[in-house]
Amino acid sequence: MARTKGNVLIGQSGGPTAVINQSMVGVVEQARKDSRVRHVLGARHGVKGMLENSIVRLDKQPPALLAEIAKQPGAALGSVRKKPTEEECARIVEFCRANDVRWLYYIGGNDSAETAQLFELVAERSTWDMQVRHVPKTIDNDLCETDHCPGYGSAARFVALALMGDDLDSRALPGVKIDVIMGRDAGWLTAASALARHRDGDGPHLVYVPERPFDLDAFTADVERVRAELGRCVVAVSEGVRGADGKTVAVTKEVDAHGNAVLSGSGTLGDFLAAQLRQRLGAKLRVRADTFGYLQRSFYGCVSRVDAREARAVGRFAVRSTKDGAARSGSIALQRAPGKAYRVECGLVALEKVAHVTKPVPAEFLAAGPDVSAKFLAYARPLVGELPRPAQLR
Amino acid sequence: MARTKGNVLIGQSGGPTAVINQSMVGVVEQARKDSRVRHVLGARHGVKGMLENSIVRLDKQPPALLAEIAKQPGAALGSVRKKPTEEECARIVEFCRANDVRWLYYIGGNDSAETAQLFELVAERSTWDMQVRHVPKTIDNDLCETDHCPGYGSAARFVALALMGDDLDSRALPGVKIDVIMGRDAGWLTAASALARHRDGDGPHLVYVPERPFDLDAFTADVERVRAELGRCVVAVSEGVRGADGKTVAVTKEVDAHGNAVLSGSGTLGDFLAAQLRQRLGAKLRVRADTFGYLQRSFYGCVSRVDAREARAVGRFAVRSTKDGAARSGSIALQRAPGKAYRVECGLVALEKVAHVTKPVPAEFLAAGPDVSAKFLAYARPLVGELPRPAQLR
Repeated sequence: MARTKGNVLIGQSGGPTAVINQSMVGVVEQARKDSRVRHVLGARHGVKGMLENSIVRLDKQPPALLAEIAKQPGAALGSVRKKPTEEECARIVEFCRANDVRWLYYIGGNDSAETAQLFELVAERSTWDMQVRHVPKTIDNDLCETDHCPGYGSAARFVALALMGDDLDSRALPGVKIDVIMGRDAGWLTAASALARHRDGDGPHLVYVPERPFDLDAFTADVERVRAELGRCVVAVSEGVRGADGKTVAVTKEVDAHGNAVLSGSGTLGDFLAAQLRQRLGAKLRVRADTFGYLQRSFYGCVSRVDAREARAVGRFAVRSTKDGAARSGSIALQRAPGKAYRVECGLVALEKVAHVTKPVPAEFLAAGPDVSAKFLAYARPLVGELPRPAQLR
Repeated sequence: MARTKGNVLIGQSGGPTAVINQSMVGVVEQARKDSRVRHVLGARHGVKGMLENSIVRLDKQPPALLAEIAKQPGAALGSVRKKPTEEECARIVEFCRANDVRWLYYIGGNDSAETAQLFELVAERSTWDMQVRHVPKTIDNDLCETDHCPGYGSAARFVALALMGDDLDSRALPGVKIDVIMGRDAGWLTAASALARHRDGDGPHLVYVPERPFDLDAFTADVERVRAELGRCVVAVSEGVRGADGKTVAVTKEVDAHGNAVLSGSGTLGDFLAAQLRQRLGAKLRVRADTFGYLQRSFYGCVSRVDAREARAVGRFAVRSTKDGAARSGSIALQRAPGKAYRVECGLVALEKVAHVTKPVPAEFLAAGPDVSAKFLAYARPLVGELPRPAQLR
């Protein structure tokens, strides 16, 4: 373990969130207090900056500036979707050796945990004594080991507020409204749409997650059932839903650097589902589809306070977790204390438990039909913060 | 003119906004203070409620409830996209006679002004002494005579905050990002995207409004120019852009009850432009497109304070404008006082000046290239309220 003095290097990776800068600032704050730490460096665009020696001195930023940046969406250091090769990791470890980097903090999702794992492997092999920490962030909430991911609460808040407004809009101008929500493999964010409901009859009336096979006939029948009852229907559907054959319902051909199909930044699924409903239920039916897209992670000024606080806390804890004798590598996890009052603590878990894997919404969080369970709502409510309750004319 | 006592009837029509309920509550508040007014009735779903006798007693709603509802998006009375026939208008006037409605307030856009005009015409013909007021609302800001429309400031604020966040997202993960913004014939809302810029290099870098012919070759060249300079490009484009031949760039076949093509609730244009850029600039280019859709008018909790205040004020003024001796009909307009400090007053203008017509963004509000002018920014800034200023690492 690194007992000697040295420098800290921070990188941000993957899709930004509303609070990824909180985690970065949390690392900087705690590292500044750490007597072992000489300089706090930030890599521009994650591994890219490490490979191209594009570095910013985070310890030279005024604290007031960092406090401002913490509140902003986006990734202030720049992000990247690059999976480094082993050879590139070797170059990065040499960069760390040359710059006396003893602590490397990589803020990202499970792809970033995989990258962190590779850093550690190569560092150990090349006998560079360095601790690596993966600091979790993702609006998808699909990381294993942690109760939930920093970034999720704010994105879930956006989705809940969007559905609350959309439900009022649908009450005003009834019809079928389809909202396509981010989430490739896991329906966490789509599930959060259910937080918009306060009263019987409130939308979303149907919630489709990728954890359950999606069937067009069943979907059409569900919509018809809700329309028969309420005269309108608000649908929340995950961009990642697929049929029983495992194929996505409407696919684009683009893949990102990690080989994942690009589902966001395209209205394909929403337009497809709307067209199907018009075809099956009659062209006169008012059907609209919105794909929330990148607004879910980037809209300026939609932050869950709990999420912001926790994102800062995981950054701070990541630094504290490198104390002498601590594990060479690990990922920070939020552990929820049992009991009614919401309380979380940070812990350190092994990288291999977080890399490569994703955590789907468990069966107990889903209802029998296309909906979430009360247990999910109890899980998610504290994460988004208090939501307004729409009033209705008597 | 209606000197006698009587009842008030209020309807909401067209697409809801973040503040259309403010106007409704403004009418109720002022009508309650008016000694001529016996009851304040609200029609459910505008003309539909008038035809089907679906009425709510607004004077029986607790003021605290109305105050809550004023803050909510959606149209609390329900809205409608129905253009009544003359025969239906005659039935509505008979409904007014039967219910002693002496003052009719119709809150909506220019289609609603047209409906209000028809109400007045038929009432006069059938000798029912009634005053009709069109209370303006539209996120599109395309009503004539008024300096701006209640509803625009909040939607413009949403667009500005969305672009601010999107620009930070694009800085983190560079590429080309296309944001498709509402506005069929007028680019007011798309133009508001430029309010997101605070520093040189901030996006949106290109702003395309329907007032200027859209050309795919020029668009591609514009994007290439910005990318060459900044390594990324954020585009704000109106859903209504069309080529020099007047044809929309990518069309859907759906039309609404007023015969207007449905452009929102579909990712068509964004996906089309993204595909064109990939085809022309190489499939490896990271291009994403988001269509903001109905979130622009319905997102819960994105309200411009100025807009909320003014929406309430036009409702109140509408009632005051029916004082004895006042015109039988009219539309409320906001008139901006000259001078540097922002100040508006309400006035009454003739319905025929507002119905049927739309107000495009004038040439002086547009730059030579695909952008807005400084004059537009000065016009729009007071309407959206103060915006945060993102900080940047040094």
